[in-house]
Amino acid sequence: MSGMCCRDTLHYVFDYETPKTLVIPSLRMGCVFRFTQLLVILYVIVYVCVIQRAYQEMDSVLSTVTTKVKGFSLTNVSQQEPLFWDTTDHIISPQRDESFFVLTNVVVTPDQIQSRCPEVSRIQTGLCVNFSDSVQTCQVFSWCPLENDTDLPNPALLAAAENFTVLIKNSVTYPKFKFHRRNIRVNSSYLETCEFHHKTDPNCPIFRLKYIVSEAGEDFQEMAVKGGVMGILIDWSCDLDWWWTDKCFPKYSFRRLDNKHIINNVAPGYNFRFAKYYKSANGEETRTLIKAYGIRFNIIVFGTDIFQKKFRSKFGLSDEDS
Amino acid sequence: MSGMCCRDTLHYVFDYETPKTLVIPSLRMGCVFRFTQLLVILYVIVYVCVIQRAYQEMDSVLSTVTTKVKGFSLTNVSQQEPLFWDTTDHIISPQRDESFFVLTNVVVTPDQIQSRCPEVSRIQTGLCVNFSDSVQTCQVFSWCPLENDTDLPNPALLAAAENFTVLIKNSVTYPKFKFHRRNIRVNSSYLETCEFHHKTDPNCPIFRLKYIVSEAGEDFQEMAVKGGVMGILIDWSCDLDWWWTDKCFPKYSFRRLDNKHIINNVAPGYNFRFAKYYKSANGEETRTLIKAYGIRFNIIVFGTDIFQKKFRSKFGLSDEDS
Amino acid sequence: MSGMCCRDTLHYVFDYETPKTLVIPSLRMGCVFRFTQLLVILYVIVYVCVIQRAYQEMDSVLSTVTTKVKGFSLTNVSQQEPLFWDTTDHIISPQRDESFFVLTNVVVTPDQIQSRCPEVSRIQTGLCVNFSDSVQTCQVFSWCPLENDTDLPNPALLAAAENFTVLIKNSVTYPKFKFHRRNIRVNSSYLETCEFHHKTDPNCPIFRLKYIVSEAGEDFQEMAVKGGVMGILIDWSCDLDWWWTDKCFPKYSFRRLDNKHIINNVAPGYNFRFAKYYKSANGEETRTLIKAYGIRFNIIVFGTDIFQKKFRSKFGLSDEDS
Repeated sequence: MSGMCCRDTLHYVFDYETPKTLVIPSLRMGCVFRFTQLLVILYVIVYVCVIQRAYQEMDSVLSTVTTKVKGFSLTNVSQQEPLFWDTTDHIISPQRDESFFVLTNVVVTPDQIQSRCPEVSRIQTGLCVNFSDSVQTCQVFSWCPLENDTDLPNPALLAAAENFTVLIKNSVTYPKFKFHRRNIRVNSSYLETCEFHHKTDPNCPIFRLKYIVSEAGEDFQEMAVKGGVMGILIDWSCDLDWWWTDKCFPKYSFRRLDNKHIINNVAPGYNFRFAKYYKSANGEETRTLIKAYGIRFNIIVFGTDIFQKKFRSKFGLSDEDS
Repeated sequence: MSGMCCRDTLHYVFDYETPKTLVIPSLRMGCVFRFTQLLVILYVIVYVCVIQRAYQEMDSVLSTVTTKVKGFSLTNVSQQEPLFWDTTDHIISPQRDESFFVLTNVVVTPDQIQSRCPEVSRIQTGLCVNFSDSVQTCQVFSWCPLENDTDLPNPALLAAAENFTVLIKNSVTYPKFKFHRRNIRVNSSYLETCEFHHKTDPNCPIFRLKYIVSEAGEDFQEMAVKGGVMGILIDWSCDLDWWWTDKCFPKYSFRRLDNKHIINNVAPGYNFRFAKYYKSANGEETRTLIKAYGIRFNIIVFGTDIFQKKFRSKFGLSDEDS
Repeated sequence: MSGMCCRDTLHYVFDYETPKTLVIPSLRMGCVFRFTQLLVILYVIVYVCVIQRAYQEMDSVLSTVTTKVKGFSLTNVSQQEPLFWDTTDHIISPQRDESFFVLTNVVVTPDQIQSRCPEVSRIQTGLCVNFSDSVQTCQVFSWCPLENDTDLPNPALLAAAENFTVLIKNSVTYPKFKFHRRNIRVNSSYLETCEFHHKTDPNCPIFRLKYIVSEAGEDFQEMAVKGGVMGILIDWSCDLDWWWTDKCFPKYSFRRLDNKHIINNVAPGYNFRFAKYYKSANGEETRTLIKAYGIRFNIIVFGTDIFQKKFRSKFGLSDEDS
């Protein structure tokens, strides 16, 4: 019995199974049948191989971003004259493409010269001097006096930068489609007075820095002390039907990009050092070392892939700006 | 009649339809049939799951761009000595990756110091002075004297930059394929004298700035006054059969990326401010404020995706440079 | 005979062939059959059109990179005082996003002023003077004295930069998934002392420059003379099962990106010029021209596409950092 069952199963496994077909030897029906097949083959060749291939070629999206920051601040450190800072002082290396840096806090070490001065380690000359009355350290050869960045100003020295505004110009171009979109399409008089707000002014390209930071759920004053990295996201993925009219505006959103958590975090915040070099009357080089804390704003443009997919489905061409 | 028709339709809708199959209980034919099925399954597992998965891993294209601008210009403003400008003065922050900026026009405000001077608004000290004989304004605390950028030099002060040339080096690497392509593959003696022209010298990587701008349908002299953004497009999507020989050269094209139309356009052109800081003999900080107008050239490399697709279909490996 | 064969073939080509189907007029079986079809259609509409569409929207990966270089060097050129260089002097324009430049060799031309001096060509004033006792050249108007970059220091002046270390912080965020990953997830005390080694410390984010260059099969001392471009690749494509735990660390690898071969290579290495501007006591502008040779490190983050594909297949959400 078991042997037969097994043979039966084997019989099913190794049976050859094929659909029965009905062959109608009619020349007219046959011709219609083959013609239909030909249409399918032509469709595959023409559409998939030629047209789709053409689409592959258009993979070039040109996104251009330029920014302009406006504002100024005053610092009033005791013992010193008040200092005036405009955007030239605030925005270091201004012509970067898709990001900008706003200075919010500084540790300045003026009048450094190449000489010997007391420090804990580094390059020892062998001479040991009194660092203070109680601590004796050894001499180093360096830019002296050495920077002392232990007393970081808090609140941040240039926290007034929260009231700066930034104008962001972004354009997206598909060269082969001759299609062009800009984020600025409101009239000039409106632009001169408007300020972005996600409800009341969602299309105004002028952003107050404080608003950007608060929308990301952060506090500017707190962030200003040690610096950080913020992302300004420009999302072009608007509804399909709006692409072809003039009503497709990008959506803006904001997030903090660096890690503000304290656990397993080395060097939290964002800072870097740079120097201004001077030459004294006797030809000796001096420098002012600046440890700059601040917020780097990265502008991230996305949604252009989806835009492209929509292009492919719509198949039409348009040139908004011509 | 109508009831019967309805029942007939319902009858067609809910009939169960299945193809008739013919079962041939032949062990030999069955074996061949199952073996063919096995091959299909093996193909799916091996090719789609293992090899295609391997392809996913190679999604890293390394495109590197370096640029070098050559040229100099002379400015001859009345009342002043002629000034000589080399590329160090022209190209501000030179080591950027995929773009470079060429200064074409400047508004210079020399010898600014932190002090009080007359202006319309800003930070008022409460003292009002005569700005000119007819206009009375209030004093501000700022970098003085204030910049006056209403008289923009036209023609542009450094419009001679149109005769500058730029050498662009671009290489594309697929690390996992050990495949490497460079845009420079002509011999060195040719490189020393050649200049790009889309018909006569389409493979020369040295471009005259004036040519770039004119190929984009723009006028350098006009663009130089207020600045702008230009795109240099490097298109690597050459014919499939050329990839494997040494004859696949990228194609270069040029377009203006910023909006030059006047309607709904705030701050047309491209400019930014920077300063040179000096210290006078008595230790006071002065600065020369420079409002720099110029052309930012963005280098955009594309076609590398298509390259990758071709890779997948060809399946071969090659290392041009080894 | 041949005519008949031909007619037979034609007969096969134009026969209409269709599978025989069996129609079972059972309402119960029909209902089950149509219900199954309905499920397939619903699957297509719900999954492909709604859910997949939702996935399209999440195409925004935010990758943020910040770097911090540490180290210093001393130069001891004969006839001069020793000079101390810290990272402020070494790292030019420090706040760039995904790359940093380390100075390794310099040609310094101090005390240039705008004047007339002898040179081979350029802007001739018509006066010809003796360049040296044997060579007579014509006067040019330029920044004088002219730079002489024929004697490039070898070994490189600042080759001690090989012992610099760089801390790289990289985070990858998928905003719509609220998913976040950082390359730094080891504890702080380990971070203070560790140094990357691909076998012993593969997760330490602090890299010695010499190690980076040697892992790419290059020699730092040799590369330091004329400069070059290095790539630091951060590969996030770790095994599927590790993504959801805390154990997915990125893999680091290193390669040289510029062309070091001599054949058909113009201006090998990597260098650029910049200047420090000074004002002398009598108000005249002088500058120190610096031809900077060095290594540009580009940080390339990849594998995030694959990450995304895995997301789509896993369908789950997680927020590591919240």
